[in-house]
Amino acid sequence: MARLVMKFGGTSVANLDRIRNVAQRVKREVEAGHEVAVVVSAMAGTTNQLVGWCQELSPLHDAREYDAVVATGEQVTAGLTAIALQSIGVDARSWMGWQIAVETDGQHGKARINDIEGDELIDRMKSGQVPVVAGFQGIGPDNRVTTLGRGGSDTSAVALAAALKADRCDIYTDVDGIYTTDPRIVAKARKLAKITYEEMLELASVGAKVLQTRSVELAMKERVRVQVLSSFSDAPGTMVVDEDEIVEQEIVAGIAYSRDEAKVTVRRVPDKPGIAAAIFVPLAQANINVDMIVQNVAEDGTTDMTFTVGKTDLALAQSCLETVRNDIGYAEISTDMDVAKLSVVGVGMRSHAGVAGTMFKTLADRGINIQVISTSEIKVSVLIAAEYTELAVRALHSAYELDA
Amino acid sequence: MARLVMKFGGTSVANLDRIRNVAQRVKREVEAGHEVAVVVSAMAGTTNQLVGWCQELSPLHDAREYDAVVATGEQVTAGLTAIALQSIGVDARSWMGWQIAVETDGQHGKARINDIEGDELIDRMKSGQVPVVAGFQGIGPDNRVTTLGRGGSDTSAVALAAALKADRCDIYTDVDGIYTTDPRIVAKARKLAKITYEEMLELASVGAKVLQTRSVELAMKERVRVQVLSSFSDAPGTMVVDEDEIVEQEIVAGIAYSRDEAKVTVRRVPDKPGIAAAIFVPLAQANINVDMIVQNVAEDGTTDMTFTVGKTDLALAQSCLETVRNDIGYAEISTDMDVAKLSVVGVGMRSHAGVAGTMFKTLADRGINIQVISTSEIKVSVLIAAEYTELAVRALHSAYELDA
Repeated sequence: MARLVMKFGGTSVANLDRIRNVAQRVKREVEAGHEVAVVVSAMAGTTNQLVGWCQELSPLHDAREYDAVVATGEQVTAGLTAIALQSIGVDARSWMGWQIAVETDGQHGKARINDIEGDELIDRMKSGQVPVVAGFQGIGPDNRVTTLGRGGSDTSAVALAAALKADRCDIYTDVDGIYTTDPRIVAKARKLAKITYEEMLELASVGAKVLQTRSVELAMKERVRVQVLSSFSDAPGTMVVDEDEIVEQEIVAGIAYSRDEAKVTVRRVPDKPGIAAAIFVPLAQANINVDMIVQNVAEDGTTDMTFTVGKTDLALAQSCLETVRNDIGYAEISTDMDVAKLSVVGVGMRSHAGVAGTMFKTLADRGINIQVISTSEIKVSVLIAAEYTELAVRALHSAYELDA
Repeated sequence: MARLVMKFGGTSVANLDRIRNVAQRVKREVEAGHEVAVVVSAMAGTTNQLVGWCQELSPLHDAREYDAVVATGEQVTAGLTAIALQSIGVDARSWMGWQIAVETDGQHGKARINDIEGDELIDRMKSGQVPVVAGFQGIGPDNRVTTLGRGGSDTSAVALAAALKADRCDIYTDVDGIYTTDPRIVAKARKLAKITYEEMLELASVGAKVLQTRSVELAMKERVRVQVLSSFSDAPGTMVVDEDEIVEQEIVAGIAYSRDEAKVTVRRVPDKPGIAAAIFVPLAQANINVDMIVQNVAEDGTTDMTFTVGKTDLALAQSCLETVRNDIGYAEISTDMDVAKLSVVGVGMRSHAGVAGTMFKTLADRGINIQVISTSEIKVSVLIAAEYTELAVRALHSAYELDA
């Protein structure tokens, strides 16, 4: 007998039939003798509609009111799922964030969970009741509803699993696990049986949009065993686990890509101390996330500084740099939207040399120019022209012997 | 300077444009120097959809989950209305039932308000903030969301007006006041400038569906001055007030009709003590509301008992009477769906004789047969064949000199 948190995303509860399907899956686990808590997202499309209404009324709306409006989506699903469970003989009740309580900080619209009071839910689970928790929401210090930011229901589920000391947190979605790369691009992509937290984190942050990055961080910190699987099939999913649970570690776990970034080059910046800060501090103050950064060697006392930002932040980044143009004293800014970031991820890199070299050679063999390189302990990322994305992903997938 | 509660029904907040219109109306009152609290319904159609989902998942669903689901409609409107107010420079914030708190009993799906803590809202109104309250909802003794039953936002508004000691409760709807009768039937129907609580209560309970009956009862009990007016026009509305506020009292305030009732006749019931109880106690236990009741004089030791119930309760009433057939010993039950109830309402009846006589004569002159009669201190109701409804309403409207 295990204690499980089962989380169902928007497509898994998109309509009443899908909610009935969720109820049957939960019933199966309950009948297998497990203690189960359920976390639900809003029905697919609901959150977008609610967000759209807030934005249409006022682009700069009060985040506290946004939260009151948007949190209703999960509340509806929680109530409906409880009804669906009861109708097939499973004792269940819905819980909103403020009822549990899921205590968050006061950052409305992107709150962080501080604490979840799990005792009452544990008591009810022990007595056979299934708590159905509205994901994505909590209650702030101001006694008002908070939301965790888009995709926050994953984080709700992992945090709840930690609070309930659950043996596993199953994240049901519309894909049946984590693949070595995007199966829409590489037909030979393989589903991974297991992946480490660290790898999942790198993959989540470079564009494999299965799990919210924060939920993986939290799972790693709290050592919550997470399984990603599909509510549309009975195929086994991918377990996200501690490194020491994986006996035969592959060197490379997967290839990810992202077309969400744009490249910015600040040309002919004076090559003197403090110049990087002069560029990046104003961007940080404008809340712009800068990803890859390279600085060329100086010539004639000036250098070129290249970095990437999210495409949605590009206009803001440009105007931000215009305002500090005189302080920095650069010649010009050039930008490029037609770029893609490719990442090779694997904890095996720590102990195996040559992973980056294989990447560079594979791309060079296809005549693909590398514009920017950035590395972490378990990841190598390169920026290339977007038109080569599929070619490069397929080539790397073969080069690292990931093909099925 | 006055303190106002402004309540907006579903059609008044049906979409973002209508919500913007609501915000402008609120702003106008704020700029006139009034302290304003707003109560909102769900956007038109939302509640029906949410109720439909609950019923489709399980016809006999948990009322506590129904409440969690259905209460979201008003929560969305409250948040959106607060955003709309802020966007035009009016300080506002949304309040859910559990935040205020609007304390109700534990009858989920049809809860009654026990108490509203108004102090915090009053403080905020004094400081210039507009509370935007989600109508129709409260919190029960189990710390779960309750709803007040369909149309309950009117009751929310009146109860809030009482708690806030408001000078007036303005109920904005899609009609611009209370008319002497239904203007769709009688083109010469006049809008009343004022009507007494007692008259409004009789009209509300006999089919003039402008205000929920319970809201009028509460207004009368708490002496809340209620105004019914339209959010679609700037015409003055109808004030629902104490009798002594109306100087020139008409004898008859209005003519109402209802096609929502069905007639049931229990034939050849033994004419002995306790027989009425034998019929009506089981109906009451089945939660069936019985309205008009007549008992004919006995012949041959038996009598016929005729009464009306809501059409939606007719099947239940019949099966209920079948089960006690042997106890009662009646010959047969006959039913008639094709009936209409006409009511003439006016506090002036108390001091003026002949109101009922005028009604009976007017109908007789048109050859309309009266099937059942029931009277109260300020109302005379008759049951007639439904096909005569419009004819009868027009004739009575003229007979009581209500034509404009």
